[in-house]
Amino acid sequence: MIIVPEREIATLVSPADCFTAIEKVFASMAKGTAYNFPVIREAIGHADALYGFKSGFDRETLALGLKSGGFWPGNVEKGLTNHQSTIFLFDADSGRCRAIVGGNLLTALRTAAASAISIEHLARPDSRILGVIGAGHQSTFQLRAALDQRHFEKVVGWNIEPSALGRLEAVAAEKGIPFESVDLDRLGAVADVIITITSSFAPILKAAQVRPGTHLACMGTDTKGKQEVEAELLAKASVFTDEIAQAISIGEAQHAVAQGLLGASDIVAIGSVINGTHPGRRSPEDITLFDGTGVGLQDLAVASTAVDLAIARGVAMELNF
Amino acid sequence: MIIVPEREIATLVSPADCFTAIEKVFASMAKGTAYNFPVIREAIGHADALYGFKSGFDRETLALGLKSGGFWPGNVEKGLTNHQSTIFLFDADSGRCRAIVGGNLLTALRTAAASAISIEHLARPDSRILGVIGAGHQSTFQLRAALDQRHFEKVVGWNIEPSALGRLEAVAAEKGIPFESVDLDRLGAVADVIITITSSFAPILKAAQVRPGTHLACMGTDTKGKQEVEAELLAKASVFTDEIAQAISIGEAQHAVAQGLLGASDIVAIGSVINGTHPGRRSPEDITLFDGTGVGLQDLAVASTAVDLAIARGVAMELNF
Repeated sequence: MIIVPEREIATLVSPADCFTAIEKVFASMAKGTAYNFPVIREAIGHADALYGFKSGFDRETLALGLKSGGFWPGNVEKGLTNHQSTIFLFDADSGRCRAIVGGNLLTALRTAAASAISIEHLARPDSRILGVIGAGHQSTFQLRAALDQRHFEKVVGWNIEPSALGRLEAVAAEKGIPFESVDLDRLGAVADVIITITSSFAPILKAAQVRPGTHLACMGTDTKGKQEVEAELLAKASVFTDEIAQAISIGEAQHAVAQGLLGASDIVAIGSVINGTHPGRRSPEDITLFDGTGVGLQDLAVASTAVDLAIARGVAMELNF
Repeated sequence: MIIVPEREIATLVSPADCFTAIEKVFASMAKGTAYNFPVIREAIGHADALYGFKSGFDRETLALGLKSGGFWPGNVEKGLTNHQSTIFLFDADSGRCRAIVGGNLLTALRTAAASAISIEHLARPDSRILGVIGAGHQSTFQLRAALDQRHFEKVVGWNIEPSALGRLEAVAAEKGIPFESVDLDRLGAVADVIITITSSFAPILKAAQVRPGTHLACMGTDTKGKQEVEAELLAKASVFTDEIAQAISIGEAQHAVAQGLLGASDIVAIGSVINGTHPGRRSPEDITLFDGTGVGLQDLAVASTAVDLAIARGVAMELNF
């Protein structure tokens, strides 16, 4: 059994590695050669924790297993992160546990890779201004991964608490790109690409604030009730997602579907665009919206990459289990 | 993180340890302080494997986690067991992975403990003859655990392939108890306690073959379609189980319920008998039947015991994860 501890991930796995792994598994999901199992998510009635599993199997790479963990709101007081994840990979030929991989940083990286992939495949090639709504911990990962996908010349950001925007400014500065704190009207008016990465339970961005040709990656909505953008925006956009069943139930699309503005058949798996079986963006004026819900196969894909890299670089711990 | 490899389990955990742990968690389940999460079970479309998870949380012991693994029919050719299980325990206060425990032998032991517990709490105190239907790998574990619960003077056994009965005879001989290979009519006529542990998809034991006062532990049915005893037997017995929801869907009770012979409200959680909130056996003539379906909390309970014993005896491997 191979162990890749959390502390090794940062030096082992790059955003580009995750991009490659996630792009491949999204393609396999759309082809039907990889699928996610039902999600288990339980409020366990202890420590206010949400605990559960995301799992699946990719017949092409033979990645089989689960990410287990959850959200422990009291962790931060103990010096731990509130989100705790561990990824377990199994040998698809024998069912034996093959690897255990720290999943905290990988979860952040795989979520960032998903929005970066959507930008690569759906944003206008001439996109120059990137807007970010939300400036929490995860926003820096989304921004860092996104900046590699187009020749962005400026980042504009909005957050409910503007003082947190320094986080985004610092990431933009790493790449030598100017940052501006803006209101939502201006963000929608200037941005070619918008990433939303909040924990909002009410729409932040209005449909009228988004101009034609924009690409949006809505990454914050992963639970019933959460919402980042007006449902009307999904009605006028071409909507893409990682997994359609999850988008309509717990993703950003849940609201537009509930209001009858959008049907499941209107939503396209981004893997179809990657595979070339769907053209993606229809025109320079098309608004494209990627509803990133987060699936277990993403976790398995990046954990498999981490294991491969750990073996190649001689940092994998081997355990006689 | 603590590792207890499969090879340590045999010397670490006894049937009596498992009895204690499982009895306690059955009691907690009946009190509502422990519950199982939904079961994930998938035919993954590779190596003819069935893969999945059983999971849960016990608020009393704070055992949280899952058993992952499944059935790989081609394993035996590779020198591995077909059933592969690994148990993962999480810290209920922080969500961090606390321990990884080999789950193959523990699964056999916890299944055996369940039927032993049913004998302890439901069989007539003067039971002297134990009948076993089925002589596969798991039957030896059931027999060994059962023999400790009453002053059994004889074991009678039946198997579709009688040559396999030597397995049961050998276990009986360990305890100095005589064994007899019998037909089903005789088995029902003489046995005070009957354990069924087969992979049958049709009833083996008929209602008319079972005499008043018998206790049955039906342990083989854990899937839709499987069946070991006639549905009519459940109609005339007092029926107990580990988890009622599972008994009526994938347990032995599924058939009697489907035929309208039994309702969910007729079935008693064995934990209620352990807790003393249900009297259990009503009379010496009562036929009692325990439908053992197997739940994730059993796996967590015995894995927690294994971890405690491994720490106490200094054989736990500690890993800086």
